[in-house]
Amino acid sequence: MKLRKQRIVADGLGLLTRTGFGGVTLGVLAAQTGLSKSGLFAHFGSKTEVQLRLLDEAVEVSKATVIEPGMHAPEGLPRLRTVFERWLGWTEKAGLGGGCPVAGGFFELDDVAEADPVRRRLIALEGEWRGFLNGLVEEAVKTGELGAGLDVDQFVWELCGIYLTHHVSYRFIHDPQATKRAQTAFAGLVNRSRPGSTRKPSPAVRSRRRPVQRPG
Amino acid sequence: MKLRKQRIVADGLGLLTRTGFGGVTLGVLAAQTGLSKSGLFAHFGSKTEVQLRLLDEAVEVSKATVIEPGMHAPEGLPRLRTVFERWLGWTEKAGLGGGCPVAGGFFELDDVAEADPVRRRLIALEGEWRGFLNGLVEEAVKTGELGAGLDVDQFVWELCGIYLTHHVSYRFIHDPQATKRAQTAFAGLVNRSRPGSTRKPSPAVRSRRRPVQRPG
Repeated sequence: MKLRKQRIVADGLGLLTRTGFGGVTLGVLAAQTGLSKSGLFAHFGSKTEVQLRLLDEAVEVSKATVIEPGMHAPEGLPRLRTVFERWLGWTEKAGLGGGCPVAGGFFELDDVAEADPVRRRLIALEGEWRGFLNGLVEEAVKTGELGAGLDVDQFVWELCGIYLTHHVSYRFIHDPQATKRAQTAFAGLVNRSRPGSTRKPSPAVRSRRRPVQRPG
Repeated sequence: MKLRKQRIVADGLGLLTRTGFGGVTLGVLAAQTGLSKSGLFAHFGSKTEVQLRLLDEAVEVSKATVIEPGMHAPEGLPRLRTVFERWLGWTEKAGLGGGCPVAGGFFELDDVAEADPVRRRLIALEGEWRGFLNGLVEEAVKTGELGAGLDVDQFVWELCGIYLTHHVSYRFIHDPQATKRAQTAFAGLVNRSRPGSTRKPSPAVRSRRRPVQRPG
C-alpha cells in the first residue's frame, strides 16, 4: 500500500512538472498509473490533496538535488553559488520530465482565489525558500564576501528573477547561452554586493528618475 | 460580423490572461460570449487559431499600454525607464483581468512540442520584444547614459528577470513592495551599466568560481 502510494506520487510529480496543476487530476493520474479512480481515492481524497502531496514530494526532491550539494560547499559565497547552480534547471537534474512546478504554479494559479490551498502552499514554500536563500546570503555577509550594508531581501528577490528568466531561456526558448547568462547575471549581482561596492546612483541618473524608496 | 469578432477577441483576451491557454477553448469561449460553438467556428477555425488571434490582440494592447507612453519620453534612459515602468503589471494597467499571457505561456507551454504554433508564436513575440528593448538600451548607450562596452543582450536578459519576478511578487504573492523592489533592481542594473562602471569581479571572487565565459 505504502509502496504503491510512493509510486503514484513519483509518477504524479513527473506529470505535474510537464502539465502544471491543471493536468494533475485524479482521472489523469489514474490513467497514468493504471489504477482505477476509486483506487486512487483510497490514497488521496481529492485532487487538491494529490496536488499538495506532489508539492511535498517536489520539496523533498529539490532538497536532495539543490540543497544537499550546497551543504558540501564551504559556507559563504561558495555555498550560495553551488545552491544557485544546482537550482538552475533542478527538475532536469533530478530526472523529472518537465519544469519547476513552483515556478509554473506562480503563473498558472495567479488568478485563483487567495484562499486556494495550493496557492497558499506555494506562497508558504516560496517564503521558506527565500528564507533559506536569505540565510546563505547572510552567511556570505558574515564571511566578508558580501557587504555588511547589503539589502539581503533585495538580493534574493533579484536572484529569483535570474532563476525565472533562466527557466524561460533554458526550457522554453532553448537558448544555448541560458546558463552562461544566468552565471553572468549571478556574478554581476555578487560583484555589486561586495564590501565597498554599494553605491548610490550618480546625481545625473537620480535627477532623471522618479525617487525609489528603498524597501525595508 | 466584424464587430462581433472584435468582441469575442476582447473577451477572449481577458479569459486568456486569467486562465492561461489551457482555459481558452472554443467551448469555454462560446459559453463566455453567449455564442454557439458552431457560431464561433464561423469566426475561428480552431482553438489554435483563437489562441494565435488572442496573442495578436495582446500585442496590440501592450503596444498602446507600454510602448506608446515610452515614445513620449526623451530618447535614452528616460524612455527605457518609462517602458520598463509601463511594462510592470501592464495587463492590469490595460484593464485586463489577469496576468501577462506571454509570461504565463512561457511556463504553461514549456513542455509542448517545439512545432506547436502557439509556442512558436510566443518565441517569435519574445524575440521581437527583446529586440525592441535592445534598441532602447542601445539608444541609452548612444546618449552616453549607459557604457559603450555594455553587453546589451545580457542587460535585456536581466531586465526580463526583473519583470518575471515582479510578476510573481505582484500578482501571485501580493507583496506590497513588489514594484519598489523592481525599481530598485532596475536602478541597480542601470547603475552598474553606466560608463566606467563595468568591472570584472575581484580576483578573490574569480578564484572561487568556475570560469564564466561571456556570451557572445
